[in-house]
Amino acid sequence: MRQITTANIIAIGTELLTPYRTDTNSLYLTARLNEIGIDVTSKSIVGDDVRDLERAVAAALDHADVVITSGGLGPTADDLTREAVSSVLGLTMTEDPALVEQLRERFARRKAVMPEINRRQAMVPRGATVLPNPRGSAPGLLIARGEQIIVLFPGPPRELEPMFVASVVDALSARTEGRRLRRRVIKIAGQPESKVDQVAAPIYSAFVDGVVPVATTILASPGQVELHVSARGVDIPAMDAQLDDVVGRLTAALGDSVFSTDGRAMEVVVGEALRARGLTIALAESCTGGLIAARLTEVPGSSAYVLGGVVSYANAVKHEQLGVAATTLQTYGAVSEQAAAEMATGVRERLRADVGLAVTGIAGPDGGSDEKPVGTVCFAVAGPGDALVTDRRVVPGDRQLIRAWSVMVALDLVRRAVR
Amino acid sequence: MRQITTANIIAIGTELLTPYRTDTNSLYLTARLNEIGIDVTSKSIVGDDVRDLERAVAAALDHADVVITSGGLGPTADDLTREAVSSVLGLTMTEDPALVEQLRERFARRKAVMPEINRRQAMVPRGATVLPNPRGSAPGLLIARGEQIIVLFPGPPRELEPMFVASVVDALSARTEGRRLRRRVIKIAGQPESKVDQVAAPIYSAFVDGVVPVATTILASPGQVELHVSARGVDIPAMDAQLDDVVGRLTAALGDSVFSTDGRAMEVVVGEALRARGLTIALAESCTGGLIAARLTEVPGSSAYVLGGVVSYANAVKHEQLGVAATTLQTYGAVSEQAAAEMATGVRERLRADVGLAVTGIAGPDGGSDEKPVGTVCFAVAGPGDALVTDRRVVPGDRQLIRAWSVMVALDLVRRAVR
Repeated sequence: MRQITTANIIAIGTELLTPYRTDTNSLYLTARLNEIGIDVTSKSIVGDDVRDLERAVAAALDHADVVITSGGLGPTADDLTREAVSSVLGLTMTEDPALVEQLRERFARRKAVMPEINRRQAMVPRGATVLPNPRGSAPGLLIARGEQIIVLFPGPPRELEPMFVASVVDALSARTEGRRLRRRVIKIAGQPESKVDQVAAPIYSAFVDGVVPVATTILASPGQVELHVSARGVDIPAMDAQLDDVVGRLTAALGDSVFSTDGRAMEVVVGEALRARGLTIALAESCTGGLIAARLTEVPGSSAYVLGGVVSYANAVKHEQLGVAATTLQTYGAVSEQAAAEMATGVRERLRADVGLAVTGIAGPDGGSDEKPVGTVCFAVAGPGDALVTDRRVVPGDRQLIRAWSVMVALDLVRRAVR
Repeated sequence: MRQITTANIIAIGTELLTPYRTDTNSLYLTARLNEIGIDVTSKSIVGDDVRDLERAVAAALDHADVVITSGGLGPTADDLTREAVSSVLGLTMTEDPALVEQLRERFARRKAVMPEINRRQAMVPRGATVLPNPRGSAPGLLIARGEQIIVLFPGPPRELEPMFVASVVDALSARTEGRRLRRRVIKIAGQPESKVDQVAAPIYSAFVDGVVPVATTILASPGQVELHVSARGVDIPAMDAQLDDVVGRLTAALGDSVFSTDGRAMEVVVGEALRARGLTIALAESCTGGLIAARLTEVPGSSAYVLGGVVSYANAVKHEQLGVAATTLQTYGAVSEQAAAEMATGVRERLRADVGLAVTGIAGPDGGSDEKPVGTVCFAVAGPGDALVTDRRVVPGDRQLIRAWSVMVALDLVRRAVR
C-alpha cells in the first residue's frame, strides 16, 4: 500500500467558533503525527452543521492521506460527525449490539439507566473499527477507505489523547514505512531571540542539507528561547547521532545560558539543583510580586527546598521585614543592586535559608525615570556560603512581560549560583 | 445590496501547522464580527502553499459573505496570500507607486534602504482598497467581489487588530443593516458551574424565545464562572433593556457571589474596593505560594494598596515570620482555620496593613490524609478593624487547579470583607 505522509485535522463544534474557545486537540495530534513522520497540511474548524461538516470532510479527503476529526460524537441531535462522514463516504450505519451493551453497562456502573438517545453512540458505519473510550461514553471510529484512513475522536482532550495512543498510533505508523521524526529541545535563559539566532544559525544552517537533514525552529517566550532541532527519516540511529552532534555544537556555542536539553522547565532545573545539593531557598520579591515563589512551588515536592519568601512591595516592608537599610533606600533607591543585595541577604538570614534570591524593579507603566526607565530590574543571589551575585538589566515590554522576563532572569541566576 | 451575515476566517502560515503555535487572530476577529451581527461559520488554517491557499479561499467564497485572511503578506517568497486571492478571483495585480513610496519612506525613517524584495508588498489586485498598517510594513487589502467582501490582513495581532478597527469594521457594519450583538458578562466566584447553572437556567431559559431573544453561555475557569448573556437584532435600546432585565434577575438570584457585571477581573474589583476605602492589604500564603500577591500586583498602580506579603511554605516561616503559635501548629496543624487566622492577623500586624489575608492548604499530590484530603484549604481574612473571617473548603482538581481555585476563593473573601 502507498505510504501515508499527510494529515488534515477537523475540529467540530459550534462552541469552537466563538471568541472564547479554541481547538487545542490539533496541537496534541500534530505532535504525535509528526513523531511518526506525518505532516499536518491543513486544519479546519466547523460548527455542528451537517452540510459544513460534509464539506470539510470531503475537502480533507481530496488532499490528505489521513483525516482526523474531533468532536460531534455525543448522543444529542447536534452531534453529527458520524452521519456526515458516513454520508461523504457512502457508508450505511448500523447499530452495534455489543456497543449498546457496553454503553448500558457504563451507565449501570454509575447506577444509572442509559437514556435511549445514547444508542446513537452505538451506530457504526459499515466496515469501521470501533475505538474504545475508557474515559467517556463516545467510542471513536477508524475507517479505511482505499489507501486513506479516517479517524473520528470525541472532543474532550482527556478522552482523545489516550485513545490516540492506545488505538491509532500503531495503525498509522505501520503505514509510514518506519519514517519518524526525532526532536531535541535546547532551552536558553535570559537571551533575546535575535542574539540566540546569531550564534545558532551558522551552526544549524550547515546541517539543513546534510546526509541526515536537520530542521531547526526557534520559539521565544519571555526570558526564554527554545531551539527545536529535528530530523526525519527511517534510519533512527543515524538521526539520533546527527541530532546529538548538532545539539552538542549548539550547546557548546551557546554556553552556560543553556539550562535544559531534555525538556525540563527552569523551575524544575533549579529545584533539582537545590535538592541535589541539599540547599534551601528563600525569595524576596518586589516587582515580580510573588511570581517567582509561585513558579518554584508549582513543582510537586518543592516544599523540600522552598522555605518561603517575602513579597516586599512597599519600602517599609523591605526595611522592616528584610532589613534593607534606610540609607540604602535613600542613597541608591529601592531599585538598585545595593537594595537587591540587602533583600537577598536579609531574606536568607531571616528565613534561615541557604540561598536568598531578590528582585526589585520598575514594572511600569508608571514609576520610570531617565536614570531608571520602566523595565529596570535589579537582582541578587546571596549564598550558598559567602557568595553574593548582583545584576541589573533593562528588560523589554509591558508590565506583564517585564515581570515574566524578570522571573526567568532571576531563576537563571540561582541556577548558575547553585550548579 | 444583500445583507452580510456570515464570515469564514483563514489563518495562513506553515508555523500554524506545528504543535507549538495556534491561531489566535480568529478569536479577536470573531469577537469583533459578532458585535456587528456577523457569525463565523468556519475557520481554516493552511500553510504557505499556494494550492492549499487557493483551495481554502475558493471554499470560503463558496459559503460565506465575508472572507478574512491573516498572514502571508510579508515580502518573502513564501508569502503567497496576495497571489492566491488574486488567482481565485481572477484579478491581475499591479504595483502601486504610492505604496512603494510609502514603504521606502518607512525604511528611510529607520535609516535603512528598502530591499527590492519588499516591492512585493506594494502589489495590489485590481480594484482592491489598500488598508494602512501603522505598525508594520505589510499593508492590508479589502476586495469587494459582487456582494462578498474579502479582507487580507498581516499575521501579527498587534498589526491586525488596529487595522480591523480603523479600516474594516465600518465597511462591514454598513452591510449588516444595523444588526448588532449586545453582550453582558456576569462573573461569579467560588461556585461550581453546575450550581450556577441550576440557579441561572430557569431564569435565562425563559428569555430564549422572547420578543428580544436572549442567548446565554456558561464559561467556567478555576474558581470562577462567567455567564455570557447576549441579544442580537437591530433595536439596540430594546436589546439593552432586555439584557438589563435578564442580568438584573440573574444577579439577584445568584446573590453576593456575583463580583462583576462590567467585565472587571477579581483582582481589579478587590483592588478598587481597597483603594476606595483607603485600605492596605498584606498576604500570608502557604499552598498558593505567592500566586495571590502576584495576581493582585498584576494591576498597574496596585502598590497603592498592596504592601506585600509572606510566602510561608515552611512551618518555621509561619511561626517565625508570621507569629503562628507552635501550639496551634501542633494542635490543629498548619492546614487549619486556626493557623490561617493567626497567619492573617500576623501578617497584618507585622506589615502594618489594614487587611491580612491568609491561605494554607494541601495542594498535593502528596500530603493528604483521611481527615485532610488533598484539596483541603483554609482561609482567613483579618480586618478591616476587628473583623476576622475564616473558611475551610475542599477544592477539586490537581495541584494546579487547587492553587488556582484557592486564589479565587481567597480574593473573594477579601472582596466580601471590604465592600
